[in-house]
Amino acid sequence: MREASRPEDSLARIFNADSIAVIGASNDPDKWGYMLLNALMRGGYGGDLYPINRTADQVLGLPAYPTVGQVPGDVDMALVAIPAQFVPDVLREAAEKGVAGAVVVTGGFREAGRADLEEELRSIVEETGLRILGPNIQGIIRTPNRLCAMPWPFITEQGPLAVISQSGTVTAAIAEWAAQEGLGISAAVNLGNQVDLSESDLIEFFASDPHTKAIVLYLEGVKDGRRFLDAVDKAVKEKPVAVLKSGRTKEGQKAVASHTGSLGGSDRVFDAACRQHGVIRADDVESLYAVAQGLATLGTPKGNRVFAISTSGGSGALFVDEAGKHDLILPPLPAELAERLKGLHLPAFATLSNPLDLADTSAQNFREVVPVVDEADVADIHLLIFGDPVPGSVEMVEDLAGIVSGKLAVCYYGGGDTEKRDRQKIQSAGIPAFRTPESAARGIGAAVWAARHRQSHAGRRTEAPGRKADMSETGSRFVLEPEAVRLLCEYHIPYPEHGVARSADEAVRLAESLGYPVVLKVVSADVVHKSDAGGVVVGIQEAKEVRSAYERILDGVRTAVPKARVEGALVCKQAPGGLEVIVGAVDDATFGPTVMFGLGGIFTEVLKDVSFRVAPLERRDAEEMIEEIQGYPLLSGARGQLGCDVNAVAQLLLSVSRLVTDHEEIKELDLNPVRVYEKGLLVLDARVLEKGGQ
Amino acid sequence: MREASRPEDSLARIFNADSIAVIGASNDPDKWGYMLLNALMRGGYGGDLYPINRTADQVLGLPAYPTVGQVPGDVDMALVAIPAQFVPDVLREAAEKGVAGAVVVTGGFREAGRADLEEELRSIVEETGLRILGPNIQGIIRTPNRLCAMPWPFITEQGPLAVISQSGTVTAAIAEWAAQEGLGISAAVNLGNQVDLSESDLIEFFASDPHTKAIVLYLEGVKDGRRFLDAVDKAVKEKPVAVLKSGRTKEGQKAVASHTGSLGGSDRVFDAACRQHGVIRADDVESLYAVAQGLATLGTPKGNRVFAISTSGGSGALFVDEAGKHDLILPPLPAELAERLKGLHLPAFATLSNPLDLADTSAQNFREVVPVVDEADVADIHLLIFGDPVPGSVEMVEDLAGIVSGKLAVCYYGGGDTEKRDRQKIQSAGIPAFRTPESAARGIGAAVWAARHRQSHAGRRTEAPGRKADMSETGSRFVLEPEAVRLLCEYHIPYPEHGVARSADEAVRLAESLGYPVVLKVVSADVVHKSDAGGVVVGIQEAKEVRSAYERILDGVRTAVPKARVEGALVCKQAPGGLEVIVGAVDDATFGPTVMFGLGGIFTEVLKDVSFRVAPLERRDAEEMIEEIQGYPLLSGARGQLGCDVNAVAQLLLSVSRLVTDHEEIKELDLNPVRVYEKGLLVLDARVLEKGGQ
Repeated sequence: MREASRPEDSLARIFNADSIAVIGASNDPDKWGYMLLNALMRGGYGGDLYPINRTADQVLGLPAYPTVGQVPGDVDMALVAIPAQFVPDVLREAAEKGVAGAVVVTGGFREAGRADLEEELRSIVEETGLRILGPNIQGIIRTPNRLCAMPWPFITEQGPLAVISQSGTVTAAIAEWAAQEGLGISAAVNLGNQVDLSESDLIEFFASDPHTKAIVLYLEGVKDGRRFLDAVDKAVKEKPVAVLKSGRTKEGQKAVASHTGSLGGSDRVFDAACRQHGVIRADDVESLYAVAQGLATLGTPKGNRVFAISTSGGSGALFVDEAGKHDLILPPLPAELAERLKGLHLPAFATLSNPLDLADTSAQNFREVVPVVDEADVADIHLLIFGDPVPGSVEMVEDLAGIVSGKLAVCYYGGGDTEKRDRQKIQSAGIPAFRTPESAARGIGAAVWAARHRQSHAGRRTEAPGRKADMSETGSRFVLEPEAVRLLCEYHIPYPEHGVARSADEAVRLAESLGYPVVLKVVSADVVHKSDAGGVVVGIQEAKEVRSAYERILDGVRTAVPKARVEGALVCKQAPGGLEVIVGAVDDATFGPTVMFGLGGIFTEVLKDVSFRVAPLERRDAEEMIEEIQGYPLLSGARGQLGCDVNAVAQLLLSVSRLVTDHEEIKELDLNPVRVYEKGLLVLDARVLEKGGQ
Repeated sequence: MREASRPEDSLARIFNADSIAVIGASNDPDKWGYMLLNALMRGGYGGDLYPINRTADQVLGLPAYPTVGQVPGDVDMALVAIPAQFVPDVLREAAEKGVAGAVVVTGGFREAGRADLEEELRSIVEETGLRILGPNIQGIIRTPNRLCAMPWPFITEQGPLAVISQSGTVTAAIAEWAAQEGLGISAAVNLGNQVDLSESDLIEFFASDPHTKAIVLYLEGVKDGRRFLDAVDKAVKEKPVAVLKSGRTKEGQKAVASHTGSLGGSDRVFDAACRQHGVIRADDVESLYAVAQGLATLGTPKGNRVFAISTSGGSGALFVDEAGKHDLILPPLPAELAERLKGLHLPAFATLSNPLDLADTSAQNFREVVPVVDEADVADIHLLIFGDPVPGSVEMVEDLAGIVSGKLAVCYYGGGDTEKRDRQKIQSAGIPAFRTPESAARGIGAAVWAARHRQSHAGRRTEAPGRKADMSETGSRFVLEPEAVRLLCEYHIPYPEHGVARSADEAVRLAESLGYPVVLKVVSADVVHKSDAGGVVVGIQEAKEVRSAYERILDGVRTAVPKARVEGALVCKQAPGGLEVIVGAVDDATFGPTVMFGLGGIFTEVLKDVSFRVAPLERRDAEEMIEEIQGYPLLSGARGQLGCDVNAVAQLLLSVSRLVTDHEEIKELDLNPVRVYEKGLLVLDARVLEKGGQ
C-alpha cells in the first residue's frame, strides 16, 4: 500500500498537466471519448495528448495507444471515459504508469446502485496513491493552460474565477456567463461522486492558485463539515469564497437527497457556519454570479461607503434599496464637495446628492465628477450606473480606473446590444460590470463583507479543533441533573447554590443552610420532564414547606411514573427574576457540535428566533450570535428597561462551546431557562443528553 | 372651458393613432425631434406622419408644416419635442386642431424649477380637453401598429406585456429583455411628470386593451393611492398586474424623493395594499421580468401543484427551494404513476420522483413522460427544466404544448448560444421560457397567486368607497376616552361596562353597580399618557379602595400635569386576563385610512410584527392580516394553549375599518391593549387622535 499523494500536489499535476491520456478516446462523435478529446483539441491544449483506444491506430488524427502503459512519454493526468466496470483495471494501470490523477467522467457507480465499484476505486487510491476526481462528472476546465476537458460548457476565456460545483448545469451557467461577459474563469470542476478528492481539497488547491482571485461553489451538501470549515478558514485568508447551497427548505433537501444523496445537517446551521467562517452565501444562481463578479474584481474595499453616480434616477433608487440589505451606506455629500461639483457645469437637471443623478448620458460628466468625489474621500467604492447607453463609456471607465484604482464598479443596465458589448469590454478590463443595480449592490456588498470578515476574524485558528459530527446510532441517555450541574461547574457556568437531598430531613437542612426561598427538583433517571411529573416545587419559604414539598414531589412522581427510581431531590437557592434566554448545543449532522442561542419561551418556540454557531466559538462569534436575533433589543435594553449583562451571555456561550467541544459524549445540551440580570446570569435548568446508554 | 375627454378615449386615440404630428421634427441627428421621427419611420409606422418645423419644407424626406394647424388632414396625436417655454402655445394650437392627446417629451418643467410652466399645461387640459402624457418622458411605444415614438429603447417586437414606468431606464431593461427573449410588448410608456394622465389612467386603459395580457409597472410612488387601487381592482379582474416599487428602505425613499419628488406613504402599507388588491410586488428588476413572463403566458393556473422534470438534479433542487417561498407544491408521484413511468424505458439513472431527474438530455424522454403525468392529474403546471442543451427541444415543447395546453412552462438554463436561441423560440411560441430555476419559481408562483387572488377576491367592489389621504396640516387633538368609547359602541366594538364619575361618591356608586373588581382612569383632555401621570388604578376590590383611588388619581394627575383640567374618572369593570393584541388605524400619506394589527407589547414594539390593510377591509382581508403576523400561532393556539377567538378579532378589524372610513376626522386610532378570549374580546383602552383642534 502506497501513501496517497497530497491532494494539492495531485491537483496541481491534474490542472497543470503537461500530458493527458484520454482513456476511451473514440472516433465516434456520439461517444464521450470523442467529445472530450475534441474539446481538448479545439481548446488548443498545448501539452501532449495521448488517445487510448484498444483497436484504433489513430483517434482524431492523433496516434493512439491500446493501453496507457504503452504511452511512450510521461502522463500527468488520465481522463477516463470507458464503461464503469472497466474503470478499476485501467486506473491500476495508470497508477503503475505514474499518472498523478484521474478525472473519471464515467457514470454508473454509486448513483446507479454500484457502490461496490465505487469502493474499488477508493481501494485503488489507498493502494496506489493515484488520486481521483469523480467519478460521474462532466470533466474539468483549466483556462491558463487551455485545458478544456469538458465537452459542455466549452470555455476558454481565462479569468479570476474558480468554479467548483456539484451540478454540471450550475457550472455551465456560471462559467458561460463569466465567459460571455468578459469575466472569465481560472478553472471549472464538477464534484460528481467524490470518491476521493472533495470540495475541500479543491478549495485548498484554489486558495493557493495564483490564477484564481475568488472561489465560487454550488453545493448540495458537505461530506465532512469540519474539513470544509478548515479548508475555508485557510482559503478566506487568501481570497473570498462564495457558495450557493440548495436544500434550504425541507422540500429542497428531499430533492437534493435524491440527486446526490447528500444528507445534510440543518440548513440554518450551514448558514451560520458560512457567516462564522467568512463564506458568502448567495440566494440564487443569478446572485451567485453577481457576488462572484464583486469578489473577483473588487479586491478588499476599505469600507462600506459607496458613492453612486447614474444617468438615471430610477436606477439609483433601485441600487439604494438593495444596498441597505447588504449593509452598504451612501454617505451624503459634504457641503464643500457639493459646491465643488456645482462648479463643474454638470447638466442643469442633475441632482447633486448621493446617489448623484446626472439626468444625462455624457461620459464627460462621469470623468469630471468621480476624481473630485474621490479626492474628498467620502466613499470606498465609486459605482457608475449607466441607465442608458453612454457613448465612450469604455474609454471613460478605463481612464477613471487609472485614477481611482481598485475603487471603481460599473452597472451597465439594460439588455440592448450596446450595453452587452460595453459591459463585456469593461469587465474584461478588470472592472466589475454588473447587469442590474440590484446585482451591483449584491456584488459590492459581498466584497465589503468579505473584506471586513477577513479583518475582524484575522486571528481565527485554521486548524479547527472541533469534533466531527458523530452520527452513529448508539442510542442516548439523559444525565441526572446533579451530574449535569457538576459539568457546568467545571466550566464555571453559574448555577444557583444547591445540594442533593436524599430525605426530607436532609432537604430541610440544605434549605436552611442555603437560605430561603428555595426550589426542589426531583432527581431521577426515569423522569425527563420533571415539571410535568410534578417533580418541581418553587418558592419554598420555610422548613415546613420544604418537608411537604419533598413528600409531594415523591408522591407526584410515583403517581406519574410508577416505576421511577427516585434518588432524591435537588435543593437550589431560588434565583431572582430576570430576562430568560435559552442556550443549547446540538450535534449537527454536518458540522458536529453547534451552539444555539435564543430568548426564552415563545421567542424560540413560536418565532424560531434563534441563532447558531459551530463550536469552537471565538469571542466575536458569541457576540454576533447574540446580536443576530430579532429580539436583541430586549437584551440590550428596549422600552426603557435596563439592559442585561450581554457580556455574561457571551461568556456562557463560549463556556458551552468549550464544554461540548471537550465532551464527545454529549449529543444535546439544553440550558433552559437561563436568567440574565443587569450583572451576571444563572442557569436554572440543565438537560444533557449523552450518546450511548440504554 | 371644455370637458376633458375621458382618459381611456384619449389614450386609445394616442396609442392607436392614425396620424401623428411630430412637433419640433428636425433634420439634425442630435435633436430629439430627429430621433423621434426617425424611430417612427424605422419602426414602420403605417399612419400619416406630419413633421412640424417652422422653417424646413421637408424633414427626413417628409413634407413638413410650420404649425400643426396647417396640417391638411386630421391629427390624433402630437409628439412634442420643443423647448419647454414654447410647449403651452403649441398645445393650445394642437387642441384647436382637434388633436386628442399630446406626448410631451420635452423636459424643463417642475423638475427644473418651472412648476409654473407645468401649471400652464394643467390649465390647458382643463380649458381645451386635450390630454397629456408627460412632460419629461422618453416617449411611447405601441407595437401592434408599429408606433415606435421612442428613440431608445427601439422596440418593435409585439407581445403580451404592457410596460408602464416612472424610469426610462427600467422601461428599457424590461422591454429589451422582452424583445430579445421572444416575449415582446404590447406597449411601453413612461410616466414623466404626470401633469395629466397618470399610472392609474394607463392601468385602466391596458386593462381593456385586447393586445395586453399582463401589465407591469415600475413606480417610485403613487399620486393618488385610492385612484390607483380603484384602477387596479378593475384591471386584476381582466389580467394580472405586477409592480416594482423603489423606496423600500428609508434611504431608498430619499433617493426616490430627489428623483421624482414622490413623497410616499409607508412602504409596508404599499406592500399590504398590493397584496390586498391582487398586485404582485417584485423584489428587483430581474424578478419583475420573471414575474412578467409567468403572468403574460401562463394564464390562470388551476392550482399550485407543479410537476418538475429536468435533465439535471441540481436545477431541480434549486427550483424546489425557491418554489417553497412562493407557495408552490411539488406533489409526490402516486405509486401507480411511478409504475407507469417505469414502463417508459427512461434512462437507467433517472430518479422517478417530483422533481423527476432524467439525468439525460434526450427530448424524447420529456415527450413520453409529460402526457402520462398529465393524465394522472397530479399537477397544474408542468415545468421542463433543461440544464444542458436539449437537441430538438423547441419542437418537443411545441408538441407538448398541444397536449397539455396552457399548463406548460420551461426553464432553459445557462448562458450558451443554444440556450438563448431555443429560449427565444419557445417564448415566441407563447410558452414561458425562464432563464433560471429560481426565476421559473417566481414566474409560476406569481401566476398562481394572481389566479387565486382573482378567485378569492372576485367580489371586491371596484369603486373603493374609502377616503383619500388627507395630508393638510391642520393640527390634531386627542379625543377624551369616554367620547372615544361612545364611538366604539356605535360600531359594536366591545368595551368593558363603564361609566364616568365626576366625584368619588359617584365613582363608588358606579363601581357598586358594575361589580368588582373595577379600574379607574382619569378623564382629562390634558393627560394623554394616563398611566405615566398616575391616572390609572386597576384591581380595585371594594368601595373604600374606589374612594382612595379616585383621590389618588386626582392628586397624581395634578402633580404630574399641574394645569390639567380633570373632568372626572372613567370607572370600568375590570376585564379578565387574556392574550393582548393591538388594533390601530393610521391615515397613510398615499392610501388614507389604513388598519393595523399586531400582538401586544414587544411583538409590536420590538419585533415590528404587525400587518396592514387599506380600509375598507373585506372579511378575507381581515383574516389574512391576522394570519400574516409571525406570532399567529399564539393566537390560534400554540404550546398547548387554547386558541383565541380569531373570529372576534376579524370582526373587530372590520368594525375599525368601517369606523375610520366613516369618520374623516380621525387621524389615528389606537386600541391597545385588546384582550382576546377563547370566546370574544374586550378593548381595554382607546386612544383617538382627530384632525383639527389646537
